[in-house]
Amino acid sequence: MKFVTAEIKGITTVGVLDSTGENVLPLNAAEQCRSGEKIFPDTLLECIQMGDSFLEKVNSLIDWEDVNSFYIPMSDVRLLAPIPRPAKNIFCVGKNYADHAIELGSAADIPEHVMVFTKAPTTVTGPDTEVQNHSGITNQLDYEGELAVVIGKEGQGISRENALEYVFGYTIINDITARDLQERHKQYFIGKSLDTSCPMGPWLVHKNELENPGNLKIQTRVNGEIRQESSTNKFIFPIEEIISVLSKGMTLEPGDIIATGTPAGVGKGFKPPKYLSGGDVIEITVEGVGILRNTISK
Amino acid sequence: MKFVTAEIKGITTVGVLDSTGENVLPLNAAEQCRSGEKIFPDTLLECIQMGDSFLEKVNSLIDWEDVNSFYIPMSDVRLLAPIPRPAKNIFCVGKNYADHAIELGSAADIPEHVMVFTKAPTTVTGPDTEVQNHSGITNQLDYEGELAVVIGKEGQGISRENALEYVFGYTIINDITARDLQERHKQYFIGKSLDTSCPMGPWLVHKNELENPGNLKIQTRVNGEIRQESSTNKFIFPIEEIISVLSKGMTLEPGDIIATGTPAGVGKGFKPPKYLSGGDVIEITVEGVGILRNTISK
Repeated sequence: MKFVTAEIKGITTVGVLDSTGENVLPLNAAEQCRSGEKIFPDTLLECIQMGDSFLEKVNSLIDWEDVNSFYIPMSDVRLLAPIPRPAKNIFCVGKNYADHAIELGSAADIPEHVMVFTKAPTTVTGPDTEVQNHSGITNQLDYEGELAVVIGKEGQGISRENALEYVFGYTIINDITARDLQERHKQYFIGKSLDTSCPMGPWLVHKNELENPGNLKIQTRVNGEIRQESSTNKFIFPIEEIISVLSKGMTLEPGDIIATGTPAGVGKGFKPPKYLSGGDVIEITVEGVGILRNTISK
Repeated sequence: MKFVTAEIKGITTVGVLDSTGENVLPLNAAEQCRSGEKIFPDTLLECIQMGDSFLEKVNSLIDWEDVNSFYIPMSDVRLLAPIPRPAKNIFCVGKNYADHAIELGSAADIPEHVMVFTKAPTTVTGPDTEVQNHSGITNQLDYEGELAVVIGKEGQGISRENALEYVFGYTIINDITARDLQERHKQYFIGKSLDTSCPMGPWLVHKNELENPGNLKIQTRVNGEIRQESSTNKFIFPIEEIISVLSKGMTLEPGDIIATGTPAGVGKGFKPPKYLSGGDVIEITVEGVGILRNTISK
């Protein structure tokens, strides 16, 4: 099942895609006609916080005999980031593909332990939006295509074996980075937290749809040119390991978002570098998830 | 004026201290008796988000002739962190005192540019609470006494000259750090984000009470022994500069919390190091703000 946060007729709502991907079922509108009750919260974050009952209630709604008349065609829908306003910074794993660590340095930069920085919630923007070019602040705006994990259940001290039980689903993140700021300010946060530097979407795929999140093709194109092409099977630290390390002494919560790192092929890795310019279109495809497309503002 | 988040008779409420510091006025309880209306939100974060009208409404309540009968003595009050659940990670400035940069390395480690990392919202704990020792996860738990700035107004691209207009007030933070994790995971986030590793309080002092936040004595004691003793006039990057740099391209929001860095004298700086153990009592005093006291769990 694919969950969306969408604006439909001016109202922001939580919905699910039908199997064709061409229609969205707005959960509250349909449920209120069925039962007269508002049982779904207004944000996908709060829906995830409902726990298992969320999926049960969605399935029950989808089984309703009259449900088909409530689907809205994609042409009348504007997709937003699935979680437009996370309740905390987005966790990001740095250098989780060896070839990316090497392109930005050398084999000595391949990490021995999970490396985590964060992006502020104010960075989040949706699919098909403009990413601010932040000219005057950076001359080295760069893309990073990444699979993102969304946590579904609170946990601390989670073992690798149980880690995937704590996942709700998966989405795509473009970890837009100002390389000059990243270098100047040492810790990555400042170079990673410019407004609109975290495009997210186009939707949140429930984990039941992805047989093995550790073996998904990932590709990033800029103006149609393939820049990054890899697979999540190249992770240095698999998702289970990331969740286990992060949750050692730190409680993970439903709705937490973890970007899993980017493969080789970022702009800075080319000689000369291929940084982003106004008008550039970035498309990130993750197998089984979808395509996240954004444009850099002029 | 000093604002508190407090538990009074089992209810969590926002209040203000009287001038003696010995009594708390619970805003909603008093206001509801005065006007019959609930005009204050339940959290201090939401009160700050009200903007200037928050202070006006508090002042109006305090001027009420019957207000004195609503003050509750401190003995019946349990103070919580002023903002127990921030809406994003806490921004932390690294190495903002030259002597601290040197004690952890050498003069070459004195930063030329503001360095920022974050702590997860799940780290926050109140004054007079137990900080988990996280034995089994770290052997090098350390303290860092810091002045923290709370933002009062949304802004982006804020100039140094206007920076303090964007401040709501000040509190104290103990940036508890697992040194072994900080080193092992390179980026600081993991070593800085263990649960309960961000004691905060005891209250939030409105900026009008502090003539010059850039010239406040700061002292940290462990079991009564003075470990850190400095002044915020030793900042490498003053508050105005921190706000200006952070807000370049990143929107700051009401309720955002910025820990301004710690002076020399952390446990790791001693030879041999003086890390924290179960039962240790840490007290951080910031002139004009108060004392933040916490104990390490056994």
